[in-house]
Order: sequence, then C-alpha cells, then structure tokens
Amino acid sequence: MSDNNDDILQQLRDILGEAGIREQPDDNMPDIVLKPGSTEEVSAILKVCHDHGQALVPLGGRTGLAGGHFETAAGEFGLSLERMNTIEEIDTVNRTMTVQAGCILQVAAKAAEEQDLLLPLDFGARGSATLGGNLSTNAGGNMVIRYGMTREMVLGLEVVLADGTVVTNLNKMLKNNTGYDLKQWFIGAEGTLGVITRAVLRLRPQPKSQNTALLAVDDFTSVANLLRFLDGRTAGTLSAFEVMWPEFYEYVTREGGLHKQPLPHGCAYYVLVETQGSEPSHDAERFEAVLGEAIEEGLVSDAVLTRSQSERNELWEIRDDVLCFFELGPFIPFDISVTLDKMEAFVEDIRAAANKKRDPICVFFGHMGDSNLHVSLGNRNLEDFDHHGLEQLVYETVEKYGGSVSAEHGVGLSKREQLGRSRSESELLMMARLKAMLDPGNILNPGKILPEEQVAAQVH
Amino acid sequence: MSDNNDDILQQLRDILGEAGIREQPDDNMPDIVLKPGSTEEVSAILKVCHDHGQALVPLGGRTGLAGGHFETAAGEFGLSLERMNTIEEIDTVNRTMTVQAGCILQVAAKAAEEQDLLLPLDFGARGSATLGGNLSTNAGGNMVIRYGMTREMVLGLEVVLADGTVVTNLNKMLKNNTGYDLKQWFIGAEGTLGVITRAVLRLRPQPKSQNTALLAVDDFTSVANLLRFLDGRTAGTLSAFEVMWPEFYEYVTREGGLHKQPLPHGCAYYVLVETQGSEPSHDAERFEAVLGEAIEEGLVSDAVLTRSQSERNELWEIRDDVLCFFELGPFIPFDISVTLDKMEAFVEDIRAAANKKRDPICVFFGHMGDSNLHVSLGNRNLEDFDHHGLEQLVYETVEKYGGSVSAEHGVGLSKREQLGRSRSESELLMMARLKAMLDPGNILNPGKILPEEQVAAQVH
Repeated sequence: MSDNNDDILQQLRDILGEAGIREQPDDNMPDIVLKPGSTEEVSAILKVCHDHGQALVPLGGRTGLAGGHFETAAGEFGLSLERMNTIEEIDTVNRTMTVQAGCILQVAAKAAEEQDLLLPLDFGARGSATLGGNLSTNAGGNMVIRYGMTREMVLGLEVVLADGTVVTNLNKMLKNNTGYDLKQWFIGAEGTLGVITRAVLRLRPQPKSQNTALLAVDDFTSVANLLRFLDGRTAGTLSAFEVMWPEFYEYVTREGGLHKQPLPHGCAYYVLVETQGSEPSHDAERFEAVLGEAIEEGLVSDAVLTRSQSERNELWEIRDDVLCFFELGPFIPFDISVTLDKMEAFVEDIRAAANKKRDPICVFFGHMGDSNLHVSLGNRNLEDFDHHGLEQLVYETVEKYGGSVSAEHGVGLSKREQLGRSRSESELLMMARLKAMLDPGNILNPGKILPEEQVAAQVH
Repeated sequence: MSDNNDDILQQLRDILGEAGIREQPDDNMPDIVLKPGSTEEVSAILKVCHDHGQALVPLGGRTGLAGGHFETAAGEFGLSLERMNTIEEIDTVNRTMTVQAGCILQVAAKAAEEQDLLLPLDFGARGSATLGGNLSTNAGGNMVIRYGMTREMVLGLEVVLADGTVVTNLNKMLKNNTGYDLKQWFIGAEGTLGVITRAVLRLRPQPKSQNTALLAVDDFTSVANLLRFLDGRTAGTLSAFEVMWPEFYEYVTREGGLHKQPLPHGCAYYVLVETQGSEPSHDAERFEAVLGEAIEEGLVSDAVLTRSQSERNELWEIRDDVLCFFELGPFIPFDISVTLDKMEAFVEDIRAAANKKRDPICVFFGHMGDSNLHVSLGNRNLEDFDHHGLEQLVYETVEKYGGSVSAEHGVGLSKREQLGRSRSESELLMMARLKAMLDPGNILNPGKILPEEQVAAQVH
C-alpha cells in the first residue's frame, strides 16, 4: 500500500470513524469498504477521493447480474450505504416515501404496505437488493407493464457528485416543470455519475384483489393479440404477462420434478397473467369472463385459474424456477429486449443456431408485456460450453433484430463491449461527454458502461 | 440586414428552397421562419446556424404560456417543424406511434383512436399544439394522475443537436437499460438543448367507459382523503381529480352566466372526478357505489353523476371556462404546484393577501391529484392591477411552502427569474453546464430557462 493510500485512509478514518470503514481481504468485495452514515459523510469521502484520484465502486445489495459492482482494478475502494437504510418518512397524504439509498427493497415495500400503499417494484432479489441499487440500475421486474420501471416511481432524488457537491431535490410533486429534470441523469447510470443518497418515491394504492391464471396459446400471433386483448378488457389493471416457451415450461414441470403440471405439455406457449384490482368479488368474476371471451375468440386454447394464494404461488414458482436449469449444465442467462413483432423470428433464429451444437440448453421466458426476453443458453457438458460463442450468437441476433442488449439488468462490465449494438456512435459519445463533465477524474465506478479511455478522451 | 445575414440566408435558401423559408414581418413571429421538410434539412440548417452563431427559436403550436417561443433579441430566426407533421407509423402490435414533431396533438390522438388505442395526452390547446412542443415542454394536462406527464409516454426520440449532429434512437421497447437514457435530457428542455424531430410514443388501450361526477366536499382534509379513497377503490382507473374553490365555481355558474349550476353554491370545495374503464355497465354501477360509500363516510356532502355525454360535457365546460374571468378585469394565470398537505394553507395565505387589495380577482382551481394548482390573481380595474406585485406574492408564497414555480407550463422567459425559488444553486449550475456542453454557441432558444450569461460562464 502506497504512502498516498495511507494518507487517504487516514483522512477517511477521520471522517468515518472505526465503524465506517471495513478493511479486510474478501474475494467478493473490495478490500476496503467505506460505510458512511450520512449524506455529509458521503460528500466528505468523495471530496477526499476526488482530490486524490481514488476510485470508488458503489455497492448496493450486489445482486446485479451485469457486474456493475465489481472492481475493475485492484485498489478501488467499495462504497456501501448499508448504514444509510432509514425510511425517513411515509407521507400518506401525498402518498410518497422518502428513503435513504441503503434501505432494502423488501423493507421499504413492507413499510408501504403497512400504510395500505404499494411500492410497485418487485423481483426475485427483493430481500437483499437496496433501493440505491434499484435506482442506479433502473430496475425492472414483474410489474413493469402496469407501473413502469423504477424511473417512473422517482419523484425526487439526492445525489452526491464526484467532487462531493450535494445536489438535493426531494420533490414530492407529480407535476414540476422547473427546468431540466436532472434526476433522470442518475437513474440507471449504474453509479458512474454520482452517488444516490436519498430518494422520494411515488406510492400507489395497495391492490385489494389479485387474479392469476396460466394460459395455453397455440401460436405467437395469438400471444401478441392476447396481450392487447387482456390489457384492453381489464382497464389497465393487467400487472403481469409472463410467457414461457415449451422448453422452459416442460422442463420445470417434468415428472419427478418439484412442480405440478397445471397444464399439459405439448402447447406452443404458456402465459402467466395477473391483474390487480380493488374489488375482490367482481374482479374474480370479471377475470374469468374475460378469459372465457379469450377462449371463445380462439386466443387461448386452455386455462387454469387460481382459487387461492397457494395456487397462485404454485404458478409463480414455476415461472421463477430459473435456477433449475443449472442442474442440466452450464448456461448464460441473457436479458434482452426485442419488439413483439420480431420476437418469434428472433427466438426461431436463436433456437435453430443453438440446436446445431451438441446437447444444447436453450430456454426462453420473459416479461413479454415489456418486450423483455430472458434467454438461457448453454450446454449439458462443460467441454461443449462456448461462452464467447454463445454471447456472439445472442448479441449478433439482437443487433440484427434491432433489439436491446440489456433490458433490465444494465450494462456494467459484462455488456460494455456489446453496447454499440444497441446504441449509436453519437449516443456513446454523448454518454462519455456527460460522464467526463460530471466526473473528470473518473473516480466513480470507472470502466462501467463505458471504457475508461472513452471517457478520458472527453475530459478537457 | 448585415452581409453576414445575407450569406446565411443564401445558404439556408439553398438547403430549404423557397417553400422552406418564410420572410415577412409579423408581430407575433420572428421575421424569418425556417420550415425544414426533413431531419436532414434540420441538421443542415443547424450546421449553418452553428457555424455563423445564428440564434434560432424553435416554434411548436405557440400555445405555451411561459414564453418559450418568444424572441429574446431581434434577428433570431424561427424554426418551425410544421411541414414535418407525418404520423410515420401506428404499430398496433407493439402499441406505439412513430411521429414527426410537427404533428398536431389532436391529429395524433385521433389517429390512435382509430386503431382503438389511446394517446393519453389531452389539454385545451390540443387542436394547435404540436407534439414537438408537447415533448419539449413535458406537457401535462387532464389525465396526468393516471398516465403521467408527456415524459412517461416517450419510448424513443430523434434529436438534432446544435451542431447539426443527428441522434436517433427510435426505441419501441418498454425495457431498455443500455446506458444513460439520453432522451430524458431533451424532454422538457424547451428547445434549448436540441431540436426534437421525431418520437416514438407509447399507446394505451382505448377506454370503453367514462364515468364523471361533480362532488361537494366540506373541508380540505376531506378533499385529500377523498383522492386517496377514490384512487384506492377504483384500481388506478381514476383519470381526473379536478378541484374548484368556491370563488371559481360560483362565478362560472352564476345566474345569468353560460353554465347551469349542477350543485348549489355555498360549498367549500367542488371536485370533478372521472374514471376510465373497460366495462361500461359495471363501471357505472361501481362508480355510483363508490361515491355512495364516500358520502356514507362523510367525505362527500353532495354529488351529481352524469348520465350522458352531454351532461359530462357540461361539467367539463364549467371546469374549462377559465377565460370568463377576463370579463372581470386583468389577471395573471399562475401555474404552480404545492404538496397536498400544504395546499390549504397556501391558498389561505394568497387569498388573505389578495383580499387586502382593492377589487381583487382571486380564484383557485387545479389538477389536485397531481399537486398542480392554477391561481388566477388580478383586479377588476386596470389601475389597481400590479403585475409585479402579484408575481412577487405568488412566487414568494410558493417558495415559502417549498412548491414549484412551474407545474406544467415550463419556464421560458416568464418564470426564468423565479427558477431559483424552486431549484438550488447547484442544480442551476448543472443545467448551465449541460447547456454549455451541448450548445456552446448558445444558438438554441437562447435566454430561455437560463440567462445567456449563466450559460456562457460554463463554456470552456
């Protein structure tokens, strides 16, 4: 460790005290992790690091799949807001939550629920992901079709810039057109433009009813028509429209596996749909009637409606059992988007190419209502598994169909080299220019989203 | 006209031809208005203007109330996209509309409706406002509580930067986390950062039912509780929650006026509520039942439900008859936001101060579900009318209550000096830095939102 480092560490110790700094080697974390307890401490840390050119990796719940929280070089410090985990206010009149960035998503969601309000963000890692991480990655999840991505829940934000400047705008108002909407810069920026310390989130009414069904559909055109049909017939209360291709559904519900088979194998598509309403008895009746119409119109060939929370859980457990494919062998979980009109052809292309390999793993499922497709590609034997080749296949096909190389997981390190397939040269240049403007020393999560040299070239 | 000007004009004539340039003195428009027919022409114009330091004022439908489309200095050219008014595509599978910026809002909305889809943006100036203007001002309107501001409808954008660089990202996917979300910079930037040429907008299912009522409420706490109650009971289908204070309602529905009096005078608040559903017969029944509950719970003291489109129109005409107050004398229409918990006190403060003046005009109404309050303040006699004093009163009170000096109309010229009441020094600096980065010559709508010298100070 250099003298310079000792000097920085001493200054940081002075700011944070012993409780605010963790120094120990760990394979999964930077050796030194700073744990500020307030926005003022975050600001003081950033001033010191900015002055010394010390790089920082902001750490949320570290559940991200794109590698935004990995070190790019030895000696980077971690910055964890785990001590800043307070829900500062739930405002039941304005229906907002003001929260520190280190708060765990599930904790925040439960606190809202206790006030009969909904924080409409939910996904598998809810128990360890932090809101700061959700904001910085613009997290998606299971209810995007109804409530939007994390971005659409944010009313106000407090951010600390690379030089320690605190920019506080804890706005609670839905309508506020006072100049440029600066908070948008930082949402989804993966910690490269500033450190989000606090946020005001918009809360919604807590739904009183949920209606869930698994549907069998014969062809892709009917899947797309069904989405439009259901969304139109349920007045925007449709909150999930999850599609499983047969390879996915049939393996997860195979004989001898963990899950029952609510619908028989052999269908072309399996669609998990859910609505959230305010009127339990009528909503259930209505849901059943609308599905009946869908069957009459030939959009749906078979259907199972749930009658209890446990039946509902059983359906979701099928959809969520993504990890079971690891039993088969190594695979890569891709997170991409393509528009609905191209999704069928996209899947056919990938499937045909994958099936030319020996013992392929090739399964598709997705939040289809949001154009988000998860593709798991691999091989049953490690020696057949060609990580680079599979990435090439998927990302080249995404580019061919004008899709997105990252739907909801972000770019981080793992998709940085693919970014040019979805964004133009002029867009990448604008990103680098903003990064260079806000963080000319490139100390905030360097090398994530954009290579360091691309940013450095834009620093004046 | 200088030689330099002649030279620029000749170059612009070469690009645009005679149809693309309008030269004539007009009190309400710049003397020279450029009318490009394509993105390429916009780019070529901007290159020429950038090279010559020629300022441009982007013109939409010129319906804005904040003066974003006024010249700040003689010699500025207008830039109108009125010839770029094509709806390029309505994609009924992905439920998107790709449209040129010069298209009129009402034309776009009708085209969506013909495909049984909804472009959920609506306000009084729909027949002349352009989508480019709506995007550049992040327009609000009557359905924000349900569908959000214009920002939330935008999936993709094409923008021409000050130097003529075309940045095209006509994304159609709901989930797309590929680096910084650059389109957010330009939405609501009032034409100061780039010229929006095309957009992809998200369309929603066309509602099948509308239920509308006018309610009398006895006190402000009940108004706020009613908003939460109705939103919770109607599963997010509540699309309008418009509040009229008695001064507004009683004048508009006065004897001998244009409108009937659906509810008697003398109530504390009048609330126009509307839901949009998908199931006409049940929705009407449900709406009535929910309002019945609200009466039982003491939230509502009197109610009128509409039974026909003409009855519905009658209620909306009361709410929309803002101009009738001009019969009384000169007034300023303010567009501000305050949070619900502070709105009652804010109104009391303004009312008390206004009533100290001679023959005041002082009326309040607003999209209360969005925290947006419209305040009309003036005097019956021109000699009592103190424009500056009234502005001071309102904006000082907004600042005192932590509100927004512009809810939905933007900043333009008329609120530029007030911006510091709602945004901090560090925020204004960040805005100026982005403006200086993207438009160092300050040729795009100079002086709007930020004074020119504030931007110039950030140019390197």
